[in-house]
Amino acid sequence: MTAMGTLPAIANAADTYTWKMVTSWPKNFPGVGQGPERLARLVDEMSDGRLKIKVYGAGQLVPGFEVLDTVSSGTAQIGHSASYYWKGKAPEAQFFAAVPFGMTAQEMNAWLHYGGGLELWNEVYDKFGVEVMAGGASGVQMGGWFNKEINSVADLDGLKMRMPGLGGDVMQQMGVATVSMPGGEIFTSLQSGAIDATEWIGPYNDLAFGLYQAAKYYYYPGWHEPTVTFEAIVNDDAMAELPKDLQAILRSAVRDVNQDMLDEYTARNNDALETLLNEHKVELRRYPQDVLDKARELSGEVVKKLGDSNELAGRIYESYTTFEGKVEKWHEVSEQAFLNARNPEGIQ
Amino acid sequence: MTAMGTLPAIANAADTYTWKMVTSWPKNFPGVGQGPERLARLVDEMSDGRLKIKVYGAGQLVPGFEVLDTVSSGTAQIGHSASYYWKGKAPEAQFFAAVPFGMTAQEMNAWLHYGGGLELWNEVYDKFGVEVMAGGASGVQMGGWFNKEINSVADLDGLKMRMPGLGGDVMQQMGVATVSMPGGEIFTSLQSGAIDATEWIGPYNDLAFGLYQAAKYYYYPGWHEPTVTFEAIVNDDAMAELPKDLQAILRSAVRDVNQDMLDEYTARNNDALETLLNEHKVELRRYPQDVLDKARELSGEVVKKLGDSNELAGRIYESYTTFEGKVEKWHEVSEQAFLNARNPEGIQ
Repeated sequence: MTAMGTLPAIANAADTYTWKMVTSWPKNFPGVGQGPERLARLVDEMSDGRLKIKVYGAGQLVPGFEVLDTVSSGTAQIGHSASYYWKGKAPEAQFFAAVPFGMTAQEMNAWLHYGGGLELWNEVYDKFGVEVMAGGASGVQMGGWFNKEINSVADLDGLKMRMPGLGGDVMQQMGVATVSMPGGEIFTSLQSGAIDATEWIGPYNDLAFGLYQAAKYYYYPGWHEPTVTFEAIVNDDAMAELPKDLQAILRSAVRDVNQDMLDEYTARNNDALETLLNEHKVELRRYPQDVLDKARELSGEVVKKLGDSNELAGRIYESYTTFEGKVEKWHEVSEQAFLNARNPEGIQ
Repeated sequence: MTAMGTLPAIANAADTYTWKMVTSWPKNFPGVGQGPERLARLVDEMSDGRLKIKVYGAGQLVPGFEVLDTVSSGTAQIGHSASYYWKGKAPEAQFFAAVPFGMTAQEMNAWLHYGGGLELWNEVYDKFGVEVMAGGASGVQMGGWFNKEINSVADLDGLKMRMPGLGGDVMQQMGVATVSMPGGEIFTSLQSGAIDATEWIGPYNDLAFGLYQAAKYYYYPGWHEPTVTFEAIVNDDAMAELPKDLQAILRSAVRDVNQDMLDEYTARNNDALETLLNEHKVELRRYPQDVLDKARELSGEVVKKLGDSNELAGRIYESYTTFEGKVEKWHEVSEQAFLNARNPEGIQ
């Protein structure tokens, strides 16, 4: 190679890029808010400072629910959020955040990376001019906080509950008046009695929010969110401007963060649960069997209806449910059978 | 910054490194053998060709069981293997591969990355002069192939079975004569009757090995291996010679591979299981309850004994079992409760 030939490469390698990252979470929020920080740090180290990402919490540059618009327009090059926030723009995006009685984190990752899920997700986001990647997972969430005991489906009737998304649609059909509100308003609404119940994430985040001070009963499992898959979205033009090595670094760093967030939630939820139970005397309850059975039945209908909403939604529904059917059969003899063999007391 | 000041950085950035990677798997083996290939490709892309890794299958440069020695000596800079192969050199290394009735892939990743596990693992490997990272996971494995039905612990008595590691120790205490042999010899031994049973990995790998041609009964769950955590090991001197950005690239690429392998296994095991059941008429069986109960009891004793083997083993035992106890309680109300609510037929 001639000296002339190497010059452009060296010039290219010396180019630096400074990006803005907008997120839907308070800056440095435990768990989900750590993912963007880790991503920025990893990319900085791997690129030797050639790609710098400045992370903005919700409301610092734009409100948390404007992340997609902001990345789509190129005002920020990258964002971290969750796809159910965009259901007004693309209802089928909800398949990629959380599906009631749907796939767990491990199953979602398998579908996204080896079952065609990520390609479909990107097809949904094509019209926004962004590339989307899985950028973290919560694992199975908790069912929610209630100010009274729930002993049957009838006890849900007339309750006001903060529960967004497809799970909220299911709850509505069981007689609950569901409302949507930003995380920051939940505690006050629950304490004032404006709502009777709320779901949030899991013990680690719920403890930090102080929800145990406003409701006593803590229900499991979070059938409405077997995981939330978070997303990293990158403006297409900004991605195209990066040299190939920085593109590869960015994609692999997102993959790293995707696993790391689940690791953190998995490690920290139990300590928080113990604090809730032992220090704050929270009453842990399993959803009654008839609630679970009814919710499972209704979830199938709600998800089917989402699949019927447009052509792309139909293809995603087909891919999602086919994959789920298969992975559920595999996990019946592996993850599920093992967990039940290890902890027979947990079978109910 | 002056031109002088930038020169060393440019010279440094232009340095290229060519590494050898030795593995314990046949070249391009499905699943676990794909991890090393993906790692080499990712590192090449992210480093813009500055770090090249040539992957050797077992036996191509050195035998599969000499991976640690080869990386320790620096003959190869990096290796991909599993830590239970080194129990002769460090019995406590077995904690990091698979523990009977121990932690699943998600739980292991949480312990390693947020529970102090990775630091302990590196303490074990300090004397070998290598850095170790989690480099892939199989997920919950299958229990194994048997040439007759197992209806109780008594039916295990006198069987000859290929089962290595701590699970093999448990099987021995249930009357099984366990033997160890390389993967390549399993099929012939099972077909000739030299052994009556074997475990291997899961449907995806077991189908490729043709084990269904030599035994008819396929048992679950793989209580002996709730996952196998695979390892990437890097020679300390080789790592120290890399500039910081290439070190970061290598570590993040390993993290990427660590998740990606589990994604692949999770996605592909069910298709293989269906082929085994429908095309090859394999008989799928759950281990009898008394086998599971006895194995769980004996596993606790076997793992305790391993913890008693030396001072470091004792500290690892303490960390592992404390974390497992907590994560099992969390997963009782999350992963386990959700899987049972989603698929009540899978409860047994």
